[in-house]
Amino acid sequence: MKVAEIGEFGLIGRLAKMAQHAGNKYAEDKHQEAWKHLIVGIGDDAAAYFANNEIQLATVDSMVQDVHFSFSYMSWRELGWKSLAVNLSDIAAMGGFPRYALISLGLPGSTQVEDIIELYRGMFDIAGKFGTMVVGGDTVNAPVVFISVTLIGSAGEKKRGILRRAAAKVGDKIAVTNYLGSSAAGLEMLGKGLKFKPKFAKELRQAHLMPNPRVAEGQLLVEKGVKCGMDISDGLIGDLTHICQESKVGARINIDLVPVSLGVKECFGDKSLELALTGGEDYELLFTASTAVMNKVKKVIHCPVTVIGEIIEEKAGKVSLVDGDGRLINSKRTGWDHFKVVSTF
Amino acid sequence: MKVAEIGEFGLIGRLAKMAQHAGNKYAEDKHQEAWKHLIVGIGDDAAAYFANNEIQLATVDSMVQDVHFSFSYMSWRELGWKSLAVNLSDIAAMGGFPRYALISLGLPGSTQVEDIIELYRGMFDIAGKFGTMVVGGDTVNAPVVFISVTLIGSAGEKKRGILRRAAAKVGDKIAVTNYLGSSAAGLEMLGKGLKFKPKFAKELRQAHLMPNPRVAEGQLLVEKGVKCGMDISDGLIGDLTHICQESKVGARINIDLVPVSLGVKECFGDKSLELALTGGEDYELLFTASTAVMNKVKKVIHCPVTVIGEIIEEKAGKVSLVDGDGRLINSKRTGWDHFKVVSTF
Repeated sequence: MKVAEIGEFGLIGRLAKMAQHAGNKYAEDKHQEAWKHLIVGIGDDAAAYFANNEIQLATVDSMVQDVHFSFSYMSWRELGWKSLAVNLSDIAAMGGFPRYALISLGLPGSTQVEDIIELYRGMFDIAGKFGTMVVGGDTVNAPVVFISVTLIGSAGEKKRGILRRAAAKVGDKIAVTNYLGSSAAGLEMLGKGLKFKPKFAKELRQAHLMPNPRVAEGQLLVEKGVKCGMDISDGLIGDLTHICQESKVGARINIDLVPVSLGVKECFGDKSLELALTGGEDYELLFTASTAVMNKVKKVIHCPVTVIGEIIEEKAGKVSLVDGDGRLINSKRTGWDHFKVVSTF
Repeated sequence: MKVAEIGEFGLIGRLAKMAQHAGNKYAEDKHQEAWKHLIVGIGDDAAAYFANNEIQLATVDSMVQDVHFSFSYMSWRELGWKSLAVNLSDIAAMGGFPRYALISLGLPGSTQVEDIIELYRGMFDIAGKFGTMVVGGDTVNAPVVFISVTLIGSAGEKKRGILRRAAAKVGDKIAVTNYLGSSAAGLEMLGKGLKFKPKFAKELRQAHLMPNPRVAEGQLLVEKGVKCGMDISDGLIGDLTHICQESKVGARINIDLVPVSLGVKECFGDKSLELALTGGEDYELLFTASTAVMNKVKKVIHCPVTVIGEIIEEKAGKVSLVDGDGRLINSKRTGWDHFKVVSTF
């Protein structure tokens, strides 16, 4: 069977089972240090493990030319920004403090050195904003540009805790930071060369090419007692499905409550809700908590926090959509699968 | 200017300066946690930093199809082994304990799922030998197969120490573990379809496709007081040049002392010394220490340790070769530069 047939998530599922099996063998050995110190393995936004009672986080994300981005609409500097931003967002999704980045860069030999320097400028721009240092990596020859960024972070002492996907509880409210849909709208605009009012065009472009990871917000969530959260990279519905699968619960969302960006509404009208629900790459935080904790969170976070639904007792991973009157809405789309959506095969 | 013109090391030099500059800005901020905890940034086999007084190590290395390997001679399982082995070797080169691997895998959608499972089998084979766990990663669509492995390790408490490239001292002896040249000879054999006696063919194939990183040996070096070491990935002369540049010293090697594998001598005759000096990818350890420390090391390490020269006061980075009679030998080759050697441009 081909990867294109089982898709990215099907493949990850198979590989996670293999890793689980290998890990189980380690568990039998009391001297196995890696196993003893591991907190979270495959299946969350980042891996987590102890180093001398300090929780460490590690994540990696790759971007491939003409799969995840195109130089037809993206500058090298923007690529540098975004490649680190998506990893900062994974550390934010665990409620952690980003620290060290390792950059693995694949390049054709014909690439201009000045372009690579621009790429690194973009990375240093965002690294500086989030107290992150580039401490290593490698540079290799490749037929297309690819950039794999590994980001290592800290989540403080054991008692502080982290945000997990597997921690949603029945009765929890579901909330998101800020507004959704701008990044997917930006991709649509850039990819198809659509023209909008400069103000909106700028907003959508920025959302897709230079997203702002919610690092401070993720830290505040942990401090206020939130246990369950992740970042929205595959789309609201797809990512909420991940939370529900890992937590073995269901979820119900009121689509009338989903906060859609004004720019997306203005530019995409009827399509804007779909972009917000399934578009992906918003890099906002999606989290669940009791109403009491939600109220505490809203008081300290500087961006809007909107409750859009609740965690319910249901088949694990089932996400239902209802409208303001409680009527069920049918939606088969479950987010962005690189292997299915991308047309380069 | 193109990357192919300045080469991999030229590019890394430029980028390291940018990172240094960005780091200097951090140094002015006393609350900058990443800066405060950093021990080693760009320019060694792995980055090193403190997490609650425990030294942590992190490294990344990528392999790209038809640049670093070809499926015409390498199986998926061997690729899995080697992709982790080269990173284990970087942790060995710091004298550390490997712990957690993150795998970023680029694949065409037409790739068979069974092949990817074989790849992971190869990874789990070697991970199990070295107490390492696969704890995360991502899988992305790409026009060719690439695999970026990030490996995180520990180097224990602060007082234990690590192996550095920048720690060679004038008067130190230079030594290598085991024998050199087999991996480059293996690549030559596989790439050109050369035929040798089965015993030697197997040895060379194994050396190139399934190298054994010197993890236990690196740990023993640190325990016996060695301060300066790295692994041989770019070739003996190229890597010794790195040590000399970072340590601001020179080196003199007696080529008659360089331990060349018997299989390489048998199969490549006159060319075998060149393969041992500049071939690369041996993943043996290259280190420097006083004669007293060398003697301690030889007593505890299970593989051969051969002293091949000494660190001298010279222009930083200058490596001279002499023969058994002390006569100077001219060699302009300085190791393997991916951007120069690879013929796919």
